[in-house]
Amino acid sequence: MTRRLFSRRAFTTTAAAAAAAIAPFAVASQVKAAPADKTAGKPGGLRRITLYAEKLPDGQLAYGLEPGKPTIPGPLIEMIEGETLEIELVNNTDVTASLHVHGVDYETNSDGTRMNNSVVEPGGRYVYTWRTHAQTSRPDGTIEPGSAGYWHYHDHVVGTDHGTGGILRGLYGPLVVRRTGDVLPDKTFTVVFNDMKTNNLTQAPDFTAKLGERVEFVVITHGNFFHTFHIHAHRWADNRTGLLEGPQDQSRVIDTKTTGPAESFGFQVIAGERVGPGMWMYHCHVQSHSDMGMAGTFWVTDAHGNVPGHSMDEMSGHSMSGMSGHSMDGM
Amino acid sequence: MTRRLFSRRAFTTTAAAAAAAIAPFAVASQVKAAPADKTAGKPGGLRRITLYAEKLPDGQLAYGLEPGKPTIPGPLIEMIEGETLEIELVNNTDVTASLHVHGVDYETNSDGTRMNNSVVEPGGRYVYTWRTHAQTSRPDGTIEPGSAGYWHYHDHVVGTDHGTGGILRGLYGPLVVRRTGDVLPDKTFTVVFNDMKTNNLTQAPDFTAKLGERVEFVVITHGNFFHTFHIHAHRWADNRTGLLEGPQDQSRVIDTKTTGPAESFGFQVIAGERVGPGMWMYHCHVQSHSDMGMAGTFWVTDAHGNVPGHSMDEMSGHSMSGMSGHSMDGM
Amino acid sequence: MTRRLFSRRAFTTTAAAAAAAIAPFAVASQVKAAPADKTAGKPGGLRRITLYAEKLPDGQLAYGLEPGKPTIPGPLIEMIEGETLEIELVNNTDVTASLHVHGVDYETNSDGTRMNNSVVEPGGRYVYTWRTHAQTSRPDGTIEPGSAGYWHYHDHVVGTDHGTGGILRGLYGPLVVRRTGDVLPDKTFTVVFNDMKTNNLTQAPDFTAKLGERVEFVVITHGNFFHTFHIHAHRWADNRTGLLEGPQDQSRVIDTKTTGPAESFGFQVIAGERVGPGMWMYHCHVQSHSDMGMAGTFWVTDAHGNVPGHSMDEMSGHSMSGMSGHSMDGM
Repeated sequence: MTRRLFSRRAFTTTAAAAAAAIAPFAVASQVKAAPADKTAGKPGGLRRITLYAEKLPDGQLAYGLEPGKPTIPGPLIEMIEGETLEIELVNNTDVTASLHVHGVDYETNSDGTRMNNSVVEPGGRYVYTWRTHAQTSRPDGTIEPGSAGYWHYHDHVVGTDHGTGGILRGLYGPLVVRRTGDVLPDKTFTVVFNDMKTNNLTQAPDFTAKLGERVEFVVITHGNFFHTFHIHAHRWADNRTGLLEGPQDQSRVIDTKTTGPAESFGFQVIAGERVGPGMWMYHCHVQSHSDMGMAGTFWVTDAHGNVPGHSMDEMSGHSMSGMSGHSMDGM
Repeated sequence: MTRRLFSRRAFTTTAAAAAAAIAPFAVASQVKAAPADKTAGKPGGLRRITLYAEKLPDGQLAYGLEPGKPTIPGPLIEMIEGETLEIELVNNTDVTASLHVHGVDYETNSDGTRMNNSVVEPGGRYVYTWRTHAQTSRPDGTIEPGSAGYWHYHDHVVGTDHGTGGILRGLYGPLVVRRTGDVLPDKTFTVVFNDMKTNNLTQAPDFTAKLGERVEFVVITHGNFFHTFHIHAHRWADNRTGLLEGPQDQSRVIDTKTTGPAESFGFQVIAGERVGPGMWMYHCHVQSHSDMGMAGTFWVTDAHGNVPGHSMDEMSGHSMSGMSGHSMDGM
Repeated sequence: MTRRLFSRRAFTTTAAAAAAAIAPFAVASQVKAAPADKTAGKPGGLRRITLYAEKLPDGQLAYGLEPGKPTIPGPLIEMIEGETLEIELVNNTDVTASLHVHGVDYETNSDGTRMNNSVVEPGGRYVYTWRTHAQTSRPDGTIEPGSAGYWHYHDHVVGTDHGTGGILRGLYGPLVVRRTGDVLPDKTFTVVFNDMKTNNLTQAPDFTAKLGERVEFVVITHGNFFHTFHIHAHRWADNRTGLLEGPQDQSRVIDTKTTGPAESFGFQVIAGERVGPGMWMYHCHVQSHSDMGMAGTFWVTDAHGNVPGHSMDEMSGHSMSGMSGHSMDGM
């Protein structure tokens, strides 16, 4: 495993917020290319990682990159079009679990369904292979889309043949596949609306970025309900990258988007662009959902690390997401 | 009626699956241009067909191209931009019924609503006229979109003035309008999420294609609920055709899409492209919906007509959709 | 305040229909650039308006441009990219209220949330500043989207910290930001699906236009439910403007669109284009919603101001929306 994959960079998932809820297990982690430059580089070849499905003390289930360190959502996995990832899933839970992925190429033996015999018994191990490819032309002249996208992975077998129990309990995570040349963010936040919880938390987590940082949001929905993701004072293009891809790009620019179970999308914003530092709400805009707790805060700090009008105590009382670090050199 | 409209080609709707449920009435049929070449040709002129609204033994209602042969969904109707279709609806049911269409041009007398006096009494006949047109420029320089799209038709009067009862009982079907030059599929499958049923079946039907075939899905939603259509191991562009229209097309490439009542979309995939033959689930990804039966299988067979690891008995036990044929020469 | 902002032009919101329900308060009004030409001109500079939050006799709340003249939806506010609008909100209600906007640039003191201390006590006044900007390139080569879009504003504090009570009772309205050069409509209609009501009316309002008029619809959703907006015999492009922006624009052309709380979109149609004058339904296509009253009529009149087959009495019995005028010269 090369250093390119597991860097020391600051975490960008809901470390602290999750930690408050599920203490020692809430170590956010990610499989990520080092941000050596500002755009996604050339694809590497084959990479291998191990993913652990584990049970939390409160009965939730989660994926993690190290034993004893599961997180909800699971680790952010990033790929560049053309790369192949072999993921050995170690099932440390007491139920049959699996790994099903959206967006990338996989044969039936990596489908993660009982129907295709690609599930893992308790105590078992199983290798799933995810392949990706760049956009290309087919012989008939049509275009085969590349694998790039804001995707995700989840269990497909716990509880029901559709993984309803596994997803409910936390077995899901984000996958971002980039095209060579795609703009890289400074940090990535993952928001998963899972029924009436956000990242399986009753109170949605907070996120923090510095004014001017390029922040990527990956938004995934699971469960049984539909939601509208909204963020205050920032907006994005409703296309592949969330960024307008040219001066003539006529994509809708939006700040609110309907999203249903297993849908996923992502976008990048410049934190506080034209609006300054501040506490900016993000929330599901279904009124009863936000009122029930599906609302968190995007803290945008000024040059001194402060949010004018608010104390750091207040901020840390909410979360330190994106501000903590974690070494994975030991892997 | 020319042969161009009713060809001998294999059926692409849910013939067998539906047959299991509603026996002699489940004859899939379609109004279809012959696949003489790979792209939609020049539009013909005026075409005339007869559509029969009939009652099934179990109380459901359905449209069909021949008396005694209604299907749910109704027949796939295809048009090329510029064509006009006159549809004589023969109402063989015991309730007032109608034909309302999405996407194409129709005057008030073809609206299919009670408000516009375009409904058909039991035993009656009525001609609806659907016109289509190609994209053009208006005198003011704006562009008038063409009629091409993945559309649909349905009753607008049974039960309520919005056809709630007619739709619930099965009076709906797909309409595909193509632009001259659009890529033609080898086969088309129609999936209609109608409340908690799929094509009015408690268990979603299966579909079969050969590895490498160009398969078109038309997805329509009806009723009162929202769904997310998902298919395993295949994906599409969220634009007009479902195909990227050029190397710079920045449409989102997706494998899951929120869809609500009367929405419709379509796309083409190459069966098993990069993933091989297999049993690939398609389903609503709302967990309770898939668990209740809104999940079927897309069988992709190898060169020998087999799906590795699965027997043909298993396959035929599910469905033979897309593998049966039916002559309509007699019409 | 310049005449450019408040013109004598005919109203385009739900004047009459609303009037029937909430009598003297239902004065439709708007902040609108004069339609001096067919496309949006150069941006002006700073504009200032006063918005009054008021309580209706039936307990509903609404915004208006003049005291005693609140409307539901609130006034249509139009801006051109580059303009700044200072809105002094006068809270004439008996509860703390606010003004939160989507899409444009605002600092925390114009957020309209309790968290950001930008709410207005009963009897108080408070100035909110909305800034807009044109599309531009960032130093890193990415494109910053302009502010143009079909947006909206609403209370964010009545009832709950998300304004659930304020929105439910009527504190919302449309905002359209245009890009210089965007095609201007002849009239604009606003449709707000707010739970099971439309523009807070149990029976959706009707709208009227002349054959060939360029009609803009702004569709906003609020509350707790998802809907599908559908209009008969007309369709639009699912992009930024609702108009195809060039012959290669591959946006989906649709006549039905899923929309959830706080989402907004807009489009322009040529009234009766290729289909003629008539009574054309528009409605939420969720069957139970349309059956419960979420369905209105888009009257398209002929050259004589008539709808063939229907009397003007019938029309006026429904609504005269878009046919009445109102002078705002006195402001």
